[in-house]
Amino acid sequence: MFGLIGSFKAVPGKRRELADILLAGVGGMPGCRSYIVAEDPREDDTLWITEVWDSQAAHQASLQLPEVRAAINKGKPLIHAFGEHRETRVVGGHGL
Amino acid sequence: MFGLIGSFKAVPGKRRELADILLAGVGGMPGCRSYIVAEDPREDDTLWITEVWDSQAAHQASLQLPEVRAAINKGKPLIHAFGEHRETRVVGGHGL
Repeated sequence: MFGLIGSFKAVPGKRRELADILLAGVGGMPGCRSYIVAEDPREDDTLWITEVWDSQAAHQASLQLPEVRAAINKGKPLIHAFGEHRETRVVGGHGL
Repeated sequence: MFGLIGSFKAVPGKRRELADILLAGVGGMPGCRSYIVAEDPREDDTLWITEVWDSQAAHQASLQLPEVRAAINKGKPLIHAFGEHRETRVVGGHGL
């Protein structure tokens, strides 16, 4: 399984709006086992996204889904900066 | 919901063994919505653990469970160093 751990800095004041856009419709992505959006309590505008996919190919393919492309377009103006980006090899766990 | 994003460095060569210890029995922890163990493909001995709990109290309480204490005692000698430790406020997602 392919994992991602990443962070974004939202435009000031827009973090929750960006989180809601990222969360809308994440249920239906083929090959997506986990997609979690969280706020950093110590950095006002930072969001953390952690994802688990069947494979890196499944993640890549998701970026072409019309609803994901629409979410990216809607969210992009609310992103101030990209932060962490780590790819992982998921061994296993609860909630997959 | 309360989230954790953390990393450990295992004693060289012991990463998979440490992952297996962390994964054994994580299904039964009350209040645990997600507990995922992953290898860092760019750092030979690094593991990433991402967790989501109903509350910080549920996470704290889990540390007193006999099976969790046993896993901590078994895993401790295989941990070379602690890395990242971030607490988050989980907004939502798929797989919770």
